[in-house]
Amino acid sequence: MKRARVSFAGAIHEAVEKNDMVQLTDGRMVREDEVVWLPPVHPRTVFALGLNYADHASELEFKAPTEPLLFLKGPNTFVGHRAESRRPVDATYMHYECELAVVIGKTARNVKRQDAYDYIAGYTVANDYAIRDYLENYYRPNLRVKNRDTCTPIGPWLVDANDIVDPMNLPLRTYVNGELIQQGSTKDMIFDIPFLIEYLSEFMTLSKNDIILTGTPKGLADVKIGDEVITEIEGVGRLVNTIVSDDVFQRRS
Amino acid sequence: MKRARVSFAGAIHEAVEKNDMVQLTDGRMVREDEVVWLPPVHPRTVFALGLNYADHASELEFKAPTEPLLFLKGPNTFVGHRAESRRPVDATYMHYECELAVVIGKTARNVKRQDAYDYIAGYTVANDYAIRDYLENYYRPNLRVKNRDTCTPIGPWLVDANDIVDPMNLPLRTYVNGELIQQGSTKDMIFDIPFLIEYLSEFMTLSKNDIILTGTPKGLADVKIGDEVITEIEGVGRLVNTIVSDDVFQRRS
Repeated sequence: MKRARVSFAGAIHEAVEKNDMVQLTDGRMVREDEVVWLPPVHPRTVFALGLNYADHASELEFKAPTEPLLFLKGPNTFVGHRAESRRPVDATYMHYECELAVVIGKTARNVKRQDAYDYIAGYTVANDYAIRDYLENYYRPNLRVKNRDTCTPIGPWLVDANDIVDPMNLPLRTYVNGELIQQGSTKDMIFDIPFLIEYLSEFMTLSKNDIILTGTPKGLADVKIGDEVITEIEGVGRLVNTIVSDDVFQRRS
Repeated sequence: MKRARVSFAGAIHEAVEKNDMVQLTDGRMVREDEVVWLPPVHPRTVFALGLNYADHASELEFKAPTEPLLFLKGPNTFVGHRAESRRPVDATYMHYECELAVVIGKTARNVKRQDAYDYIAGYTVANDYAIRDYLENYYRPNLRVKNRDTCTPIGPWLVDANDIVDPMNLPLRTYVNGELIQQGSTKDMIFDIPFLIEYLSEFMTLSKNDIILTGTPKGLADVKIGDEVITEIEGVGRLVNTIVSDDVFQRRS
């Protein structure tokens, strides 16, 4: 099953996917371009990983980490499918990052690796944009790099964990204006999903709807105002986003 | 006015301070040791600062930062007044950190320094414990240092902003088992409260009940199991906390 949260005709609805359409909980069927897509879960604590694919670490000329490089993201940063993300006026590098997002399904504390999958509700796609201008070194995901308003599109669907046979073997792809420019596979993660759940739940209680953004493979490039950026994970979803100027947005709002 | 959230006789109540007693919204007066204290606001996005007092940076042998060292904290880490904080079994250094907590009162975006105080609901006291074993360098407040369950007591009261004449001139003190071992003043912050609100709101929308933990002065020391730790800020409050073993807690729960 694929679930979403959408805004339609002035109200927020839970929805499911049916025959490539969006079915609202009251049974109405609407086209996917007729709704405003919200993040598929209301994010609570959101974890993100730096350098969790060895090829990406090497691309940035960093050594692969020996412990997960984890940081938190605030709720301000999330937008849904087909939303706009704002490029800061003075930015030189705004990089897309196609990432598998793991959504926690129930309270998790001291979970062992072998039980980790029992705590997962499902998966979705995230694009964890980074404004690399502000990155001093790999230890420090400065809030200006990774916590800006609108800079983390997520969705469209939350896909039930049962429907993903092997989350550690999923192709990821990013297209900018139709051109394929990032490719990888979740099998190349340095710290895999069961490891991350064991690691975090040893000192932090994870709760339903917490999200882990598991990092991105190599192939980053700058995106410009007007670009359409599609991050796609096979079997999970295809997340469309458009880059706008922070300046334009501020005049409009 | 001083406000709190407490649990009493099986229910959660809003409360105010009256004649050194706790007055529930239904008018009942109870003693402060008869209630279970919760964090005075339900934390949403919580920001914390590293090295925001020059004397503390020097104590840790770091250069004072030229830009605020900000990171986020998850809701799992907060406990109220008179709660227990868990010292990890293998920790060598668990340091208290007495900090002024600024609570945001309304949505804030692109706020200028001179308007910053209009966006503050009030102030409370936090003790932002750090497990220094896991601190690789000052750039990286690893989640195991600063985001552990129970390791951020906060409260007891949210004191209305109007009742604090000058938040940038408040004495801070920490007592361990009755002995005064940390002293400072908020006037020694490197990045003051108006600066922090201007800085953050330029790229992140702040919301009602967001919290900024503004850093701690010098005078840190290790706390041991059984220690009673009191962090106090003049006019704001006196927050009591006790250190227990993580091991004991896990057996008990």
